[in-house]
Order: sequence, then C-alpha cells, then structure tokens
Amino acid sequence: MHIRKLRLLTPGPTPLYPPAVRAMAGADIHHRTEDFRELYKQVLADLQYFMGTSNDVMLFTSSGTGAMESAVSNLFSPGDKVVVAVAGKFGERWEQITRAFGLDVQVLEAPYGESVTPERVAEALAAAPGIQGVFVQATESSTGVSHDVKSMAKAVGKTDAIFVVDAITGLGTSQLDIDGWGLDVVIGGSQKAAMIPPGLAFLSLSAKAWARIEPRRPTYYYFDLLKHKKGGEKGESPWTPATSLILGLAESMKYVRELGRDNLIENAQLLAKATREAAVALDLELFAKGIPAGAVTSIRAPEGVSSNDIVKQYKTRFGAIIANGQGSMKGEIFRFAHLGYFDFADLFGVIAELEIILRSLGRKVEFGSGVSKVQEVYAEASKL
Amino acid sequence: MHIRKLRLLTPGPTPLYPPAVRAMAGADIHHRTEDFRELYKQVLADLQYFMGTSNDVMLFTSSGTGAMESAVSNLFSPGDKVVVAVAGKFGERWEQITRAFGLDVQVLEAPYGESVTPERVAEALAAAPGIQGVFVQATESSTGVSHDVKSMAKAVGKTDAIFVVDAITGLGTSQLDIDGWGLDVVIGGSQKAAMIPPGLAFLSLSAKAWARIEPRRPTYYYFDLLKHKKGGEKGESPWTPATSLILGLAESMKYVRELGRDNLIENAQLLAKATREAAVALDLELFAKGIPAGAVTSIRAPEGVSSNDIVKQYKTRFGAIIANGQGSMKGEIFRFAHLGYFDFADLFGVIAELEIILRSLGRKVEFGSGVSKVQEVYAEASKL
Repeated sequence: MHIRKLRLLTPGPTPLYPPAVRAMAGADIHHRTEDFRELYKQVLADLQYFMGTSNDVMLFTSSGTGAMESAVSNLFSPGDKVVVAVAGKFGERWEQITRAFGLDVQVLEAPYGESVTPERVAEALAAAPGIQGVFVQATESSTGVSHDVKSMAKAVGKTDAIFVVDAITGLGTSQLDIDGWGLDVVIGGSQKAAMIPPGLAFLSLSAKAWARIEPRRPTYYYFDLLKHKKGGEKGESPWTPATSLILGLAESMKYVRELGRDNLIENAQLLAKATREAAVALDLELFAKGIPAGAVTSIRAPEGVSSNDIVKQYKTRFGAIIANGQGSMKGEIFRFAHLGYFDFADLFGVIAELEIILRSLGRKVEFGSGVSKVQEVYAEASKL
Repeated sequence: MHIRKLRLLTPGPTPLYPPAVRAMAGADIHHRTEDFRELYKQVLADLQYFMGTSNDVMLFTSSGTGAMESAVSNLFSPGDKVVVAVAGKFGERWEQITRAFGLDVQVLEAPYGESVTPERVAEALAAAPGIQGVFVQATESSTGVSHDVKSMAKAVGKTDAIFVVDAITGLGTSQLDIDGWGLDVVIGGSQKAAMIPPGLAFLSLSAKAWARIEPRRPTYYYFDLLKHKKGGEKGESPWTPATSLILGLAESMKYVRELGRDNLIENAQLLAKATREAAVALDLELFAKGIPAGAVTSIRAPEGVSSNDIVKQYKTRFGAIIANGQGSMKGEIFRFAHLGYFDFADLFGVIAELEIILRSLGRKVEFGSGVSKVQEVYAEASKL
C-alpha cells in the first residue's frame, strides 16, 4: 500500500481554503462585541462582492436549504401561484419546500441532464396570470446543467412575480448579473465556491422582493429576513451566529477579493471545459444536454460499467472522494466538481486517475489522452 | 501594559474545549459517506447521554432559536392555546416565537430575577381547559434564575399539553430527569455546556410529543423533526450539516462521557455556589430571588456603580469578556458563567479581578475576602 492522501473533491462540501480553516479555531470571540460587529459587517460586504450585487445580503446559520425556505416563508402565502423549474434533485427541493408551505405549485419539468428553457417559463407566466413567483436553480449540480437565468429574468421581470434563484453552486462558477438582470432573490451557501465548511447560508433581496415582506406571515421566525437585514446593518445577527464559520468566511472572502470574482468564475469555467474535453477524448458521454455548468461536470459511466465502481476506485486507489449520481442517477453518472478551491493540479491528477480506473474496468485507454486535453486548455488559457 | 490573555467567560459562547477546536479543522469530510454516518450516529447517542434521556434526539445546523422554533412549528397549529412562562429575555423569545406562529398565547410573567412558580402553571392549566402546550426555560440565563421544571412537569403531565423546556443553558448545569419527570421537548445548543462554538442545536422528543407530529403543518421544512429523526436513524442529516462543528461536538462529547454527566453538572453547581458566596462576602447583592441557576450567576452592581464599568474593566484590565445584563438589565447587573468548560482556576482569577475592579471603582474591599470563599467551597468539595 502506498500513501493515498485524502482529497475531498465533491461539489459540496468542497476543498477548504487552509487559512480559513485556521481562522475557524479563533472562535473564542463573542458575537455581541464591537470586534465581532465589525467582522460581521465586513463579511456581509464581502458577500455582496462575491455575489456581485448591491442588494441587501442576509446571512443565516443554516445550510442552503434554510435560506431557500426563508424565500418561500417570508415572501409567499399559502395558495400563492408559483412556477417551479425542476431539472434535478435541487429543483425537486424547490418543489418540496413550496408545497410544504402550501403554495399553489406549477412544475415545469425537464428530464435529468436537460434544462428548463426560458421559453417555457415565459409561456407559463403568459398562460396563467397572477403568478407570484418563479423558482429555479442557476446551476443544477445534481446533473451538471445550467439554467439560462438571464433570459428567464427578462420574462419574469415583465410580471409581478418574484424571481427566486438558487445559486448555491452557481455563485463563483458562472456569471450572474444579479442587479443588471433583475434576480430578485439569489441564494448561496458556505460549503461551495466560498471555500469553507457547511453551516452558513446567505441570500440577496431586491427592492421588488422587499416590497413583499409585509404583511408578516405566521410561517417564520428563525429565518426572518427583515430581522436579519436590520441586525446586519448594526453588525449583529438576531440569534447567536456560527462564529467559527464566520471567522473562516472572512478569511476566504479576503482570498476571493484578492483573486477577483471574475477570475474565480473563470477558474471554474476553465476546469469544467478541460474536464469536458478530457471526457470526450476518453470516449465518455457528457450527461448535460443543456448548457453545461461551471460548478460540476457530470459524465455517464461507460456501457457495462457502474459509476459506483468508478467512485469506489477513486477512493480505494487514490483516497479521493468524488460524487456519484444522486437518486435514480446513482450508478449511472459520476461528477467532477470545479467550484471554489480547485486548481489545474487537482484536475491533472483526477483525469490521470480516471484513465487508470477506466483501464482497470476493462476499457481501452491510452494513458495521457485525457490529461493532455486538460494541459491544452491550460496552455491556451495561459497563452503558452 | 502587561500581558492580558483573551478569556471568553460569557454564558454562550462559552470557553471552547481545545481538542474539539482542533477536531473542527478536519472538516474535509463528506456528509454522505459511511465514515460520517458512523460519526453522526455516535454524536446523536452522545447527545442522549449528555441530556440523560432515551428519547429521540434530533440535531439541527442552527442556533438554539432554530430548535425552539421547530417545537412550535412542528407540534402546534395557529390558534392553539398555550401557556408561556416568561421570567427574562429567553422567556420573551418563547413568547415571540409562539406569537409569530399564530398561537393563542397566555403569558405567566415574573419580574426579572424571579421565577414563575409551578403553582401558577398548574392554576393556568386548571383555569383554561384545552391548553395544548406549556413553554418554559429550565434556566433563564438572562437573570440567572432556574425554574422548578420537575413540579411543572407534574402539573402538565396530568393534561394533554406538551411540556416544552428550553434547556439551552440548563443542560449540563442542572439535574433534569427528562424521562423520569416527563419533559416532552428539551432543547440544547452547542455553544453552552457542550463546549464548542455556536451553530448546532438539538432537542429530544417524548412519545407524547411525537403523537402531535401529524397532521403535517404548512409551517416548516428545514426544521422538519420527523425528517431529522428518520435521517438520524441512518446517520444522515436531511440537509448538509455543519460538518466542522459535528467533528468538534464528537470530541467534546467524548470528554463529557469521560468526566461523567453528573460531575459536569456538579462542576457548574459548585462554581455557582462559590460565586454566590464570594459575592455575598464582597457585600454584593445576588440578582436571582428564585432558585439560582448553575449556569450563570447574576450580581447587581453596587449602588452608584454601573455594571457597564465593571464589564469594561474586566476587558481592559484583564482581557476577560464577561456578560452585562441584557435589555433593561444592562448597566444594572453583571453575570458570571459556569456552564461547560469552566474550572476553579478560572473562578479564582475572576473573583480576584472583581475585588480589584470594585476597589478601583471606590468600594472598600479587603483583597482575598471573595477568593477565600471560593477556596473554601473548593476545599469542602475536595474534602480537604
């Protein structure tokens, strides 16, 4: 047995930014002190930069699902007509949350691997007047597909509906012009391109969304958006926040500012492009039929091979945790993540390992044929 | 200027158990792996030990307020008649949450520093049949007072009402026989006697409480108790959990098992007793008129002195963060915490510092007169 370093290479939790991890240990800080108030305000401003918006940003101690719920519970009432675009497991989560809160839900479904087109959203809005909200994923990380939220926003913007975008894996991996396109609610999570462990979620709200906040609905308290907005202005979270994670987030956001938001996004996009080219060179089928995501690339296991075996060999041979398909896609596809703290060195390794694993599973593979594609994308981007 | 070590001595966040902080750095773990499932199951079992119950325990990524909300949103419907005992800021939080979810709330109020008696709870239950729930704090940490939850449970147990106990600062600081007394819902948080940073909350549910879980109410999704129970049985959190904090919790819970739950509680009780005796020796007035809490001791600032100045001097002279009063009690009282990772060495320092601070504020103080009381409590407990 040789050394196998543990490498977490999944689309969330993602690899951690080491200085952020070290900062988390400094959690002997009290959340009602001036020091912490300054830190908290800084982090909220950093998140605006990270998201590229001047809208208010609110931060919760929860996973991303909590912030998704806050959009539903704070802005909609039981019986409100809403449209939900479902193209994978996270679209299904929107459907579950909106139904759990008693909304009148119309689902626009796309098969796994495809995306819901903006035309279908526009048609649904035209066909049924009085629609109060449209829910979508910027990136459906369960399948590796992106939605054309820019065009969707154009359609939604003509109506009174609120456009709610789960960008938990879309932020930092794809260009989202929140203010310019009119994305009313945009949701993110800490364990994605923000490079720290799970436990924090955040979202931005447009003026159009804020106008919906009254009357107060009897469906929320912990995820009260207005309380979080007012608290945030004073550098306070209404409830005790996850101080250790906020210390980590402050550190990773410093790095994002240093790197630049556009470079962070380009980093993911380049790695995704290189992965797709390597997969094609290795005679593998890309699972995403729509716009491929920058966050994650889904690849179909070759005929006669289960993706379970590919995922397992990554772990046993190389200590790497990569993602299998979720739900009914388990065994069918495997997924490489690019969101956040991933680099070309990671990808050279991942593709070299894939070549070995495929050969071990009986496929004919020329060693280096996938890796060289990644190298070419690197060379082109670096003008070599 | 001399060295002043930073010491966080507040009733939450509390001092961190160092091996737990180190464990938090190992967060490159994925929450859908066998390793994590084992860890998660272990932590749920550890929490049962910590709480001293065989009831199901559910764990949320949130502050304690999230778990408080889950009890309201999962078990009650708008219009349900409930009784809320309010003896401080956290009782007021129960009132706010129950009202936010549209319950029909009857408040039993006690002035700050006093507790709501079990007799008043029994009378309220007798006077208005059909009461569905009773909400209380085991320890009201804003004032340092405990409630007699044992006697309250006896009264509530004779009715159909669910008894919901916020024991966020009561767990690990006072004896609570959850199963024996019939405490239907008991709530805890990570940043208290569990010795890790904020971000995790947990609660136990009795069979009587589970019977209320159906029909499903359109007021929750993230804090779905049944989903968390079913997930927990398989070692999974329904949503991505705060992995770094769970790694820390596993470590601090190992220490709690090593120490023993009863010794952990006795530790807080002894420190609280010693603090009270020192305060009296220093001619200070204890704020708690009811049963004093083991979690925290509240002391009234002497006449002509603001507690703001006492709190400030702790920081500027000694680097120690101690708690002021909250809300209208700010400036009037100051609070010493004992919950979790506090020891006699901490308290010797805290009281010696208090003596110096009081003298600097113009009080006549004999140095050592408070510290010697702490030493005597130590000596007695150690049979010296």
